[in-house]
Amino acid sequence: MEKQKYALIVAGGSGKRMETDIPKQFIEVAGLPILMHAIKAFYSTDPNIKFVIVLPEHQHKYWKQLIEKHNFSINHIVANGGSERFFSVKNGLEYISENSLVAVHDGVRPLVSATTINNCYALAEKNGSSLPVVPATESIRVVHNGESKAVDRSKYFMVQTPQIFTAEIILKAYEQAFSPLFTDDASVVEQLGNKIHLVDGNPENIKITRPMDLKIAEALFEIDC
Amino acid sequence: MEKQKYALIVAGGSGKRMETDIPKQFIEVAGLPILMHAIKAFYSTDPNIKFVIVLPEHQHKYWKQLIEKHNFSINHIVANGGSERFFSVKNGLEYISENSLVAVHDGVRPLVSATTINNCYALAEKNGSSLPVVPATESIRVVHNGESKAVDRSKYFMVQTPQIFTAEIILKAYEQAFSPLFTDDASVVEQLGNKIHLVDGNPENIKITRPMDLKIAEALFEIDC
Repeated sequence: MEKQKYALIVAGGSGKRMETDIPKQFIEVAGLPILMHAIKAFYSTDPNIKFVIVLPEHQHKYWKQLIEKHNFSINHIVANGGSERFFSVKNGLEYISENSLVAVHDGVRPLVSATTINNCYALAEKNGSSLPVVPATESIRVVHNGESKAVDRSKYFMVQTPQIFTAEIILKAYEQAFSPLFTDDASVVEQLGNKIHLVDGNPENIKITRPMDLKIAEALFEIDC
Repeated sequence: MEKQKYALIVAGGSGKRMETDIPKQFIEVAGLPILMHAIKAFYSTDPNIKFVIVLPEHQHKYWKQLIEKHNFSINHIVANGGSERFFSVKNGLEYISENSLVAVHDGVRPLVSATTINNCYALAEKNGSSLPVVPATESIRVVHNGESKAVDRSKYFMVQTPQIFTAEIILKAYEQAFSPLFTDDASVVEQLGNKIHLVDGNPENIKITRPMDLKIAEALFEIDC
């Protein structure tokens, strides 16, 4: 029997970096709040995916208003965000059943493609973990002790989400104590010695963090839709 | 007396990666070929800058046609491109006078800001070299022997252009024999033991290489202009 697929979508933005009062996950792009695009991307890929949306508690009411405003009908559980991304994911994991596949996705990546989503679930089912990456498009330099040097960019990859794991692996990983070195779910899972398997992401799958990213996302939706 | 400023703008694209017959530097964005935007960005910052544009020889005729079509009136020398970027820059350097400042800029970065250009010239005048960089916006992984691991992204920077040097430094650097390790001008200059000085670039200063970058550039010009 096929494993149940979950999408745990984490949105903890407060809006500060966007120079706006609206948390970035709620900003409308191409007619819909960014977070709804992210949910839709998974739902369109597979309507049997179960959704857990992690949002700061004080944003739950506003989220309900947005759902009404947009007649948003995709079923989902809303979990409470934590003080760090680690704790937000941990909270969301309480709603996950065993023997499933768990995708952890940034709520501000509305442009993830069906191909990326399918490839990530498939690789995680096969190998336990998957991580979408894209090659670096620019030269890269690393700074050590105030001096910078060029690195071989062909060895470097930019990490996207969804990061997908079997429930067994991710539930165990999130029993660990928090460390500031945990920058994403892969780093949490890796800490227990699990190998992380890379898969091609889609370049459009950008993380919306700066005001210019809103314009970029708007333009990219025009190609897609 | 202030040093003469040069902008050596290199465009070697053939159009292959853009899935188009037009070399990417000639594709119109916001009403003008990308390469003309790049030249304009420097000219608007300082009309006393002298321009050397490096283009594959077989594209010179088409470039002339574009100049007529757009009534493009910014004075510039056209130099022949080489088989590698290294040789293109070397060809362009033949038109540079001593005791000047030389900016080497990608012809497919039309969105470089006046602030980036000014800061780079100023830092190169002071320290001999300058390189605009932006922080990494995504988590980064490095692959070694088929295994990937997370790196501390706060230490990594994405390299843009213009890379600016005193004529003395860059002319000497380009007397070296070509090496495939020369991925940009900084790496050529660095090979002689020169320290490279970093300066903040502007995030909009993207390199247009993929079809999606055209849409992105179009959207970013809408903000700017």
